[in-house]
Amino acid sequence: MGYTEQDWKAINTIRLLAVDATFNSNSGHPGAPMGMAPVAHVLFNKFMRFNPKNPKWLNRDRFVLSNGHGCMLQYALLHLFGYGVSLDDLKKFRTVDSITPGHPEAHDTPGVEVTTGPLGQGISNAVGLAAAQAHTAAVFNKDGFKLSDNYTYVFLGDGCLQEGVSGEASSLAGHLQLGNLIAIWDDNHISIDGDTNVSFTEDVAKRYESFGWEVLTVSDGDNDLDSIEAAIAKAQQSKDKPTLIQLRTTIGFGSLQQGTHGVHGSPLKADDIKQLKSKFGFNPEESFVVPQEVYDAYGKHAAEGAAAEAEWNKLLEKYAEKYSAEHKDLLRRLSGDLPEGWEKSLPVYTPADPAIASRKLSETVLSKIEGILPELVGGSADLTGSNLTRWKDAVDFQAPQTGLGDYSGRYIRYGVREHGMGAIMNGLAAYGTILPYGGTFLNFVSYAAGAVRLTALSQVRAIWVATHDSIGLGEDGPTHQPIETLAHFRALPNTMVWRPADGNETSAAYYVALTSKHTPSIIALSRQNLPQLEGSTIEKAAKGGYVLHEAENADVTLVSTGSEVCICVDAVKYLKEKHNLTARVVSIPCTEVFEAQSKEYKLSVLPDGAPILSVEVMSTLGWERFSHEQFGINRFGASGAYKDVYAKFEFTPEGISKRAVATVDFWKSVPNVRSPVNRAFQQII
Amino acid sequence: MGYTEQDWKAINTIRLLAVDATFNSNSGHPGAPMGMAPVAHVLFNKFMRFNPKNPKWLNRDRFVLSNGHGCMLQYALLHLFGYGVSLDDLKKFRTVDSITPGHPEAHDTPGVEVTTGPLGQGISNAVGLAAAQAHTAAVFNKDGFKLSDNYTYVFLGDGCLQEGVSGEASSLAGHLQLGNLIAIWDDNHISIDGDTNVSFTEDVAKRYESFGWEVLTVSDGDNDLDSIEAAIAKAQQSKDKPTLIQLRTTIGFGSLQQGTHGVHGSPLKADDIKQLKSKFGFNPEESFVVPQEVYDAYGKHAAEGAAAEAEWNKLLEKYAEKYSAEHKDLLRRLSGDLPEGWEKSLPVYTPADPAIASRKLSETVLSKIEGILPELVGGSADLTGSNLTRWKDAVDFQAPQTGLGDYSGRYIRYGVREHGMGAIMNGLAAYGTILPYGGTFLNFVSYAAGAVRLTALSQVRAIWVATHDSIGLGEDGPTHQPIETLAHFRALPNTMVWRPADGNETSAAYYVALTSKHTPSIIALSRQNLPQLEGSTIEKAAKGGYVLHEAENADVTLVSTGSEVCICVDAVKYLKEKHNLTARVVSIPCTEVFEAQSKEYKLSVLPDGAPILSVEVMSTLGWERFSHEQFGINRFGASGAYKDVYAKFEFTPEGISKRAVATVDFWKSVPNVRSPVNRAFQQII
Repeated sequence: MGYTEQDWKAINTIRLLAVDATFNSNSGHPGAPMGMAPVAHVLFNKFMRFNPKNPKWLNRDRFVLSNGHGCMLQYALLHLFGYGVSLDDLKKFRTVDSITPGHPEAHDTPGVEVTTGPLGQGISNAVGLAAAQAHTAAVFNKDGFKLSDNYTYVFLGDGCLQEGVSGEASSLAGHLQLGNLIAIWDDNHISIDGDTNVSFTEDVAKRYESFGWEVLTVSDGDNDLDSIEAAIAKAQQSKDKPTLIQLRTTIGFGSLQQGTHGVHGSPLKADDIKQLKSKFGFNPEESFVVPQEVYDAYGKHAAEGAAAEAEWNKLLEKYAEKYSAEHKDLLRRLSGDLPEGWEKSLPVYTPADPAIASRKLSETVLSKIEGILPELVGGSADLTGSNLTRWKDAVDFQAPQTGLGDYSGRYIRYGVREHGMGAIMNGLAAYGTILPYGGTFLNFVSYAAGAVRLTALSQVRAIWVATHDSIGLGEDGPTHQPIETLAHFRALPNTMVWRPADGNETSAAYYVALTSKHTPSIIALSRQNLPQLEGSTIEKAAKGGYVLHEAENADVTLVSTGSEVCICVDAVKYLKEKHNLTARVVSIPCTEVFEAQSKEYKLSVLPDGAPILSVEVMSTLGWERFSHEQFGINRFGASGAYKDVYAKFEFTPEGISKRAVATVDFWKSVPNVRSPVNRAFQQII
Repeated sequence: MGYTEQDWKAINTIRLLAVDATFNSNSGHPGAPMGMAPVAHVLFNKFMRFNPKNPKWLNRDRFVLSNGHGCMLQYALLHLFGYGVSLDDLKKFRTVDSITPGHPEAHDTPGVEVTTGPLGQGISNAVGLAAAQAHTAAVFNKDGFKLSDNYTYVFLGDGCLQEGVSGEASSLAGHLQLGNLIAIWDDNHISIDGDTNVSFTEDVAKRYESFGWEVLTVSDGDNDLDSIEAAIAKAQQSKDKPTLIQLRTTIGFGSLQQGTHGVHGSPLKADDIKQLKSKFGFNPEESFVVPQEVYDAYGKHAAEGAAAEAEWNKLLEKYAEKYSAEHKDLLRRLSGDLPEGWEKSLPVYTPADPAIASRKLSETVLSKIEGILPELVGGSADLTGSNLTRWKDAVDFQAPQTGLGDYSGRYIRYGVREHGMGAIMNGLAAYGTILPYGGTFLNFVSYAAGAVRLTALSQVRAIWVATHDSIGLGEDGPTHQPIETLAHFRALPNTMVWRPADGNETSAAYYVALTSKHTPSIIALSRQNLPQLEGSTIEKAAKGGYVLHEAENADVTLVSTGSEVCICVDAVKYLKEKHNLTARVVSIPCTEVFEAQSKEYKLSVLPDGAPILSVEVMSTLGWERFSHEQFGINRFGASGAYKDVYAKFEFTPEGISKRAVATVDFWKSVPNVRSPVNRAFQQII
């Protein structure tokens, strides 16, 4: 309350920075920043607590720009509050190697919490951030020590609301009663195709009420700062419901084209900018202008944030005295390091151990390490009994009043919402105290592809427990059997796709996944039992690829992953007995990690001299990188008992041997077979 | 009304067929069929119009089992009504090469309309089927000739409702006012994780009301056949709103474990089956029993359907006399053939024509052919002005009372709903009279991955107009620049990924996409301008790959796609001038189609003798199949003007030449460089 000219000057400064930056780079979206500058001004100055000098302070309020195309709004705010974003950075908006890219990227820009732009992701990340706060508070807060009580605020547009992923995450947020989540919908009636009434006429407020959210309305988001403030204040009081504030705004406010999609995705014209600056009391001939009083006002709020952090740090010191174990645990979690020696808990197997499905091996890993790694918080998209993602006696993460669990619980019932789960995991990982994992069938990780690519791009650690990883799932058939999935995610940068062949390899997969602070992992796990292999160790498998079965003067190398490795081992005998051929077997549980080894090591695994045949029950695409010939399945699978399906596609010792013989014959005429590890030049990575 | 013992005998027959089949194959989901047998009995006998002897009759009512895991319900119905599904087929449930796979597959089983199982897809397909009916009626119905007036019915479960894709499609269905769509929700409170209250507590009825649907409730779906019938009858009267019937049922009705997730995904135990059969008045020692009176009753309804079709055929004959052009058009559309000579309308270019972005070339194709191919019905996920998917003067597909268009309109405003769009396209394609296309950025086709894989699996024709296909989109940056996307969809079976390099290649992409009746296409199109290439023709490009620039005694072949082909052409000159090396250039706009050519042809394009270097600005994964060395980008992109981004990653004549020189040097020592087209054995396709 008590807004003055000064506030409007700040608001218009933000608007004009967005206008100038998009004009200057001749690219970008001025409309949303111009429409949302008032709410941003109120939210950041009257409500949000943060310290620009330490953007990673744990108890800061989180802000997510789900309509990420409006990022000049965020960059302008970061600049005004004194984050490490200079006016010069704003001038470099959308240029190569700037910290102000076309959509906000968390790993690039101080103060950006999550990477947004692909619509629907940010609001779903925000659900993860809010859940992480609730969990952190439940675990670490003590009487008199409210270490965590921050809010998560998110701006979102019509596009975010149309995307299914936001519906999934919002439904779960309502179920989880996350009162610490406040979403502000830029209800400007405009999307790229024009008026939203051409495709989006649902009653959004009613839908969010149906999700269990509180819904508030501000009918004049362009001018009525008091109502904006009142709505946010009321939203903060909603303790067991997330809040959606429906904020009616005018896109491109002030432009001659305001209220049309003409201001959505293109810079304003020079004339329009001039009239706008005059209208706002700025010099029409100047650009990138920030009045000193705006810097001063924003700097004052930033200083309040710094003071709040200092206060919090004192609290933390006292906490350290009284709760030293918790304090130590908290600092360790924030560092991303795991407790020393944790890896000793990883199970180790010998060939004498029984055959076990790797999904079950994964369950054993989780059960062995969950006590040592309290930051592990996971769940499943309604496939708990199939994914085996829940350790015995796990407590569900649920609103305590439901009687189904509480917020200190570490097992999340995601429901049948893979995409939402993926985006929520990105938020959980971004919060700082949690290492998230999530289970579904490998085939349905594809539903979450939009979120997975942002996990990789934003360089956070998250683990997909992707069971039922092939035609080996059997009866469910082609609709559920992945064929393209491993190729898809192997092609995704900064992503580890693991497909362990036995217990030691499963432990290795978790070892590398858990210790890779900036890379997500997808661990593909079998439904069917797999024997414990002679020659596998955690150490070797952690290199991504290794020689499982060595042989001198081999005629052929079989390279394989997961459930096919043991069949290759059997094929070695078959080849010797029936064809008098000598074969080596190489297991590559993770091509990404193997690729990162030294050339010398890779050549020791895949040496020159004999042809290499890859064996994997899915698309062969990409195996040419590690082999001369490929045995795979470049069609959809089949419904039937898994052994029958394997037999149909000839993934048997005999079927593999047949291809190995053909491979040896075909390469006989080549004098020095060169390993594909040899390359003419370095790739761009 | 007037239900008797006879009806319950039929209902229990269905239940027991599901129980026996799942027990017999020791796999599957008996719970949903047991709970939904009553509503299925009422719906199919009292409402649905179909002829089992001609499952493709245009005006049949459509039935979609969105909870596809309950497919024994559908198989049992198909059997009882006399479709080509025998008792023996039911006994082969979930076995290799049966027509009764683990989830319903449209191309496998007569009477199955769409391929379901992955949750949320079926209900979204149903929206497409309903939209297709509305369109077909608007186009073909005439006074006194109601050729199309069928309903689309869909069963769905809690899982379908949790998936975001169903929310996207349902919101659009409400917007489109599709009164011909009736969805029946199996509200059994159970999913795999147990009671749905652990994750799914939203008010579904209220949500569907917010979407603009009529919502009806049947509180006892287990016993109250009269109420079921009344609800469906009422739903049929809802002419401008789709209807959701909330049907409270007991999963696994009759089992000792009824109402628990124990009956969801596993066969019942032998004892349980015995008590069930006794309870239902069947012999507990017999399996796969169908009382003759059940066959008779269902046969009677089937005969009514056959009679209805006969009646309709008479109407069609009269229609042929009065509206011969429309009649001819209708039959042609149903055959899937295009009008003779249509391809003459495809634009042809010469190098004298100006450089044009391939998204713009695509717009020209659509504009040239839309008049000849009235079955083309397309849209965009709110990127019309970017995808250029809308021809001038197109009419929007909208409810006529909105004043925004009408149901004869061929342009669908999908909103920001890529996954929904993909699933709706599958329904549109399945209806029979429509050839659907949909636009978005290539990067966001990934949001729809779950739907795209079902397009491919169900072998229907649909086209993705996937613009902004690379780092060439420039400023929007890494969040929008595809890296893994082409590899992903190239690995997907039965899918053509096109990336045309110029106008003739764009025409070729459309030519093959439109004439491939059983294969979907993704056409990746540039935002930036591309020159018209010397040496490209529609005919050559239609082979998937061809020699664009030939050279005798070449030192190296450059193989490329899309926007990099013209840079390779420039690199040829650079290599000659600076390095005195001779290079050929091969363009492979579609690897899938190129792969299908004869080995002889492929060897003429990629011959033995000189090394091959691939050039494409994304993941190199898979290019090893066609090249010895790969120049690509195995990291995320960058935000900036497209020329700056290309320069950053060295996709310039100089940068390509540098790699070409390295390639030539590296392969110098190999006496006879073998083309990768040579393979040791045939792949499984």
